[in-house]
Amino acid sequence: MTDIAEERRRLRDAATVVLPGFRTLSPAEEFRQIADWCDANHVARDFYGEGELIAGLERKVAGLLGKQAAVFMPTGKMAQAVALRIWTERAGVDRVGLHPTAHPVIHEAESYQALFNIHGVIVGHRLRPLTAADLDAQAQPMACLMVELPLREAGGLLPAWEDLVALRDHAAARALPLHMDGARLWESLPFYERDAATVAGLFQSVYVSLYKGIGGIAGAILAGDADFVAEARLWQKRLGGVVVQLSPMIASIALRFDHRLAMMDALHRRAVDLARSLSRVPGIRIAPEVPATNMMHVYLDAPPERLQSARDAIARAHGVWVVPDARPAEVPGWSLVELTVGDTILELPDADVVVWWRRLLEEARS
Amino acid sequence: MTDIAEERRRLRDAATVVLPGFRTLSPAEEFRQIADWCDANHVARDFYGEGELIAGLERKVAGLLGKQAAVFMPTGKMAQAVALRIWTERAGVDRVGLHPTAHPVIHEAESYQALFNIHGVIVGHRLRPLTAADLDAQAQPMACLMVELPLREAGGLLPAWEDLVALRDHAAARALPLHMDGARLWESLPFYERDAATVAGLFQSVYVSLYKGIGGIAGAILAGDADFVAEARLWQKRLGGVVVQLSPMIASIALRFDHRLAMMDALHRRAVDLARSLSRVPGIRIAPEVPATNMMHVYLDAPPERLQSARDAIARAHGVWVVPDARPAEVPGWSLVELTVGDTILELPDADVVVWWRRLLEEARS
Repeated sequence: MTDIAEERRRLRDAATVVLPGFRTLSPAEEFRQIADWCDANHVARDFYGEGELIAGLERKVAGLLGKQAAVFMPTGKMAQAVALRIWTERAGVDRVGLHPTAHPVIHEAESYQALFNIHGVIVGHRLRPLTAADLDAQAQPMACLMVELPLREAGGLLPAWEDLVALRDHAAARALPLHMDGARLWESLPFYERDAATVAGLFQSVYVSLYKGIGGIAGAILAGDADFVAEARLWQKRLGGVVVQLSPMIASIALRFDHRLAMMDALHRRAVDLARSLSRVPGIRIAPEVPATNMMHVYLDAPPERLQSARDAIARAHGVWVVPDARPAEVPGWSLVELTVGDTILELPDADVVVWWRRLLEEARS
Repeated sequence: MTDIAEERRRLRDAATVVLPGFRTLSPAEEFRQIADWCDANHVARDFYGEGELIAGLERKVAGLLGKQAAVFMPTGKMAQAVALRIWTERAGVDRVGLHPTAHPVIHEAESYQALFNIHGVIVGHRLRPLTAADLDAQAQPMACLMVELPLREAGGLLPAWEDLVALRDHAAARALPLHMDGARLWESLPFYERDAATVAGLFQSVYVSLYKGIGGIAGAILAGDADFVAEARLWQKRLGGVVVQLSPMIASIALRFDHRLAMMDALHRRAVDLARSLSRVPGIRIAPEVPATNMMHVYLDAPPERLQSARDAIARAHGVWVVPDARPAEVPGWSLVELTVGDTILELPDADVVVWWRRLLEEARS
């Protein structure tokens, strides 16, 4: 870690008010909470994922997703690589459909190509969700189509329910399985006003994250039919993903799972309100205009380095951490911040949040 | 987990005396210890392996192994798959040499074949370490030769130092890199009376475990030249092995690393003594006759199921856990137990250990 990154981490940890994201515990606080939970729940040591703690979580998430089975994996990257591998073998076609901003396309060092010689066809457009028309434009055989709900790189945009059903219908018509990148599926349920099983019911396999909205230390679930999950366990082993003890990850997930799920409606409402208030600030634009989840992209009319310096200065002077790191937007001189609305601002009025964003922008431009 | 496996776990956890292996903490105790350690060492949250906690451990192990660099991975399977992948690409030869009992051959669902289309040539014989002659018998080109120190499936047998040097010399003569499966390298150092860097110096890349002898929650290190390790990080990412937070694993390793390393001499001596005493019991044979590390194979003249029932009965009646699960030996009616000598019997006289083994055998045969 560079010195400046290290200083920024310290500033964030020391801030008394953190506007983006969820309250984070120090490792020591986190482990003490896990220890207490393990005591209260008589948790025994696990060995290569055996035992009721892990099996219970897998069953619970499979049930929520309406799938026959589910397997815990240490990372979502592994879960999705495994899904692509299984679908290509089943189809006898080493080709899958991927959105231009799919996680495997932009964040995984071409894993699917390097490990499995899979050809990833780019389907759809960068800033909007996959549609039935996007799929129809690809006549070539594909083993599966990966669909991210919500579309992180478009600020957490979600397709309308009818559009998602249409995509599923067109896929079904050509017997194409849909795999869901549901890294933020839990966060998408308020938008659809449907339960997870109904949304997941449109997909043959589903990955969900257990650390983003759920807040565990790390971990992912891959769910699907029983035979799909049995195969997934074999590939997890081959990828070196069967860790000798998983209890810290699992306990950290289990102890807050229900609480975090129950929070999603409130987080979504809070994000919608905040977006409305933020969009009134000159020099700020929000995408999507009405957030579909608890995340949004905030565009600011100032360069990233200046925003970050201003953010750091505010943290030093006032103990308020306003934004995560920014990146350059397409429009020269503008920045993009990925904002996740977590529990830190649930009870905070818009005015008390927006005042800091105004200040940030003023200082960055001064 | 089956009901009987679950009952056995409970019996073991409830035993007041556990003869094999190391003292294990309950998850709650473990996490409390980690929490205290994190407090005392001001540990900050990590993000995808960044930060001094992990970098510090990697540097420390690289230094101990005398290598330029090292990378932490969640499992040894991943570390070794990555090593094979890098060496085959460098050699332009998709063929590696593996001992018949190499971990990738017997425990990884043919990972190297399934992921990388690598041909694993079986070199050497099941119950003895690889020799220069074994290597010479394979004239075909290979990208690397994996050498396990010690040979777990032969009770932890180690080649004599001179034989290991000869193997290295023959490999060097044909420019063949040696990769060490050092899952129990730390446990091998008393036998060689050499430091880790000297032993690792015979190898171009080294995997060591951080949970077996070291006692961490999970984790492995892959060490080698700086460019090798840089490539390894890329493959780790592709395999889905870059976990978003690693601090629990790392803290659990760091807090006992030095203490466990310092214990290895005593554990080896204790194993040698115990083997001598056990071998005097009729119906017990030990391999290797003189343990090379803190592990040995104990052969018993009784079938596995009867041994296990006797073990469970002793645990119920006396709160003493005598042996791990047994498996059938080649000789009909005999069993094989893999015995690791840990800290639980360091201070216990041989007589107090052997009495339970005698009793176990008597009850199993009655």
